Amino acid sequence: MSECVFCDRDKIITDFVYEDNAVMAFLDSDPINEGHILIIPKEHYLDVDEIPDEILTHLMIISKKVVAALKEIYKPNGYSIMQNGGDFNDIGHYHLHIFPRYTGDGFAWTYGSESKNVNEEIAKKIRDRIC
Amino acid sequence: MSECVFCDRDKIITDFVYEDNAVMAFLDSDPINEGHILIIPKEHYLDVDEIPDEILTHLMIISKKVVAALKEIYKPNGYSIMQNGGDFNDIGHYHLHIFPRYTGDGFAWTYGSESKNVNEEIAKKIRDRIC
Repeated sequence: MSECVFCDRDKIITDFVYEDNAVMAFLDSDPINEGHILIIPKEHYLDVDEIPDEILTHLMIISKKVVAALKEIYKPNGYSIMQNGGDFNDIGHYHLHIFPRYTGDGFAWTYGSESKNVNEEIAKKIRDRIC
Repeated sequence: MSECVFCDRDKIITDFVYEDNAVMAFLDSDPINEGHILIIPKEHYLDVDEIPDEILTHLMIISKKVVAALKEIYKPNGYSIMQNGGDFNDIGHYHLHIFPRYTGDGFAWTYGSESKNVNEEIAKKIRDRIC
């Protein structure tokens, strides 16, 4: 048995909504709203930048199908997609959250009011490492 | 002048961190943490399922580069990626949030404690629309 719950297929297979050779999608066991889905690569990766391009792009095309399906079924006011990396990935295996959203559903992001900088110097140091 | 702020390049160009023919990345003007970046397709789309596969996959490959750059610069404990669709897209133009995360940075998701269903019936109705 794997030490990673998302590498241990038997624990998640019953609520799967999509599966192929590279990726798998299934219901989150603690949904924010009904239809809350997780999409994972079958291979074990922690962060998005560790996932090979061909697997990540395939996973994102599946995410479009998931969003379209949720819209068709639930007729929500919208949806949210989220993914936490590094220490904020509570499972340790990349998983993309997708869930329908409704006006007044109570879901919100909260964060401190600390003053944050936005300026050209910050942009430049990031830009220099991407381009 | 476009009615969409993200189609009106002059408003965002000063803090750009990446740009090519299809996508653009720039600093969020209200960052959750320093280095909070938005990636957008240059063409106007609201939701992820409206974006052509080739543009979305390219955007996601750029997102890997952004995450890698943020890790290198800020040495964060992790990162978060988020995207809101439909009525929850406050701009009306698809934009993917990426920002570094730190232990104790105060960022959190909050949501109601309403009981939510997770069962095979829900999985099946979604599965039937994806496969």
